[in-house]
Amino acid sequence: MLEYLRPMALIRSVFQDELDGVSQSLVDLTEMVSLSIAKATEAVLTADLALAEEVIATDDQIDNYQHELDARIIDIIARQQPVASDLRALVTALRMSADLERMGDMSHHVAKIARLRHPDAAVPTELIQMFQAMGNAAEKITNKTGLVIATRNTEMALEVERDDDEMDKLHRQLISTLVDPNWKHGVEPAIDLTLLGRYYERYADHAVSVSRRVYFLVTGKYAY
Amino acid sequence: MLEYLRPMALIRSVFQDELDGVSQSLVDLTEMVSLSIAKATEAVLTADLALAEEVIATDDQIDNYQHELDARIIDIIARQQPVASDLRALVTALRMSADLERMGDMSHHVAKIARLRHPDAAVPTELIQMFQAMGNAAEKITNKTGLVIATRNTEMALEVERDDDEMDKLHRQLISTLVDPNWKHGVEPAIDLTLLGRYYERYADHAVSVSRRVYFLVTGKYAY
Repeated sequence: MLEYLRPMALIRSVFQDELDGVSQSLVDLTEMVSLSIAKATEAVLTADLALAEEVIATDDQIDNYQHELDARIIDIIARQQPVASDLRALVTALRMSADLERMGDMSHHVAKIARLRHPDAAVPTELIQMFQAMGNAAEKITNKTGLVIATRNTEMALEVERDDDEMDKLHRQLISTLVDPNWKHGVEPAIDLTLLGRYYERYADHAVSVSRRVYFLVTGKYAY
Repeated sequence: MLEYLRPMALIRSVFQDELDGVSQSLVDLTEMVSLSIAKATEAVLTADLALAEEVIATDDQIDNYQHELDARIIDIIARQQPVASDLRALVTALRMSADLERMGDMSHHVAKIARLRHPDAAVPTELIQMFQAMGNAAEKITNKTGLVIATRNTEMALEVERDDDEMDKLHRQLISTLVDPNWKHGVEPAIDLTLLGRYYERYADHAVSVSRRVYFLVTGKYAY
């Protein structure tokens, strides 16, 4: 069938399928980075070298998935020449994929600290619970962000902001612990833990960024 | 004049002007963030609170400039419905503006450490030279990145990669200094300096990312 003879409704439907496919791929990416931060957390808390190597290798897969998704989005824009609102949604999808890819990088950085310190543990025993809480918060915020992308639920997008407050609180507790006069592990572990804390904090910031972008797409307003 | 009567050459020329305008705005952003990291470095090395506040305030201007540029780029895509190669260039411009905005955030973070520690200096005397070198490297790499955007010179884009090696070397020297048994300033300054080092490193990484994007646009190949 020649393009110009194709019924308008059918063209819209193909385009809608493509947009749904983009959305699903973004959800897939949230699942990939959620698994990646969960494994990175376990690797760094248990000094598990094999698991750290797995996270580091998986980051390439996440990067490739993102590159393919971005190429697909640009191809959709080029072929469909979407109206302004659809174009904004597609450009926003590019930004969300960049945030999600960056979350994968943060998991990678966490895993690299596990590898660097192996066979020692990068996290002292008394801080394991705190980092487990950061890892859990990271997973929770990512899974919720996936739901926000899939459902465009704006209430849930605002919940992600509050979940990030929990991460920030843990991060402040960490820094307080490190600068406490009773800190007995010296400077080198403090440097590792400062960087680890920063990676978890940034990881969650990117999830918030994704949720905010969905919120803005749906409401036309900023969530903060 | 009705759109379809407009001579093709004229449409191309208006579009070309718009692309040139986008390129110029990206160069403007490199100048803004170059000035911002220079001032942030001075603020943190001299414990200059007024200068730190200035950098923090200027970050909003950089963010606004980027938001306006992005809106303009999306508007160009919507109106001009560019061919695939021009579309890729415009999408790349969106990614470059995001990198440059993030460089402004890094200057902001540096300035916030200066403000947090004021009236004390965040950087001990014996590390001033090292951080001045990091600040200089950051400025140099940004100015060169501006030239890369303006001239699309691929040789210069590769130079930016090498300039980043210099930043990485300084960063490694910094970490070695902090973990040296002779380090006498304790944990809290080490945490500040770890984060400062990370901000300069990330700042330069984003400049490299911008240069790589230009290299890829021009050559169709990855620079690394």
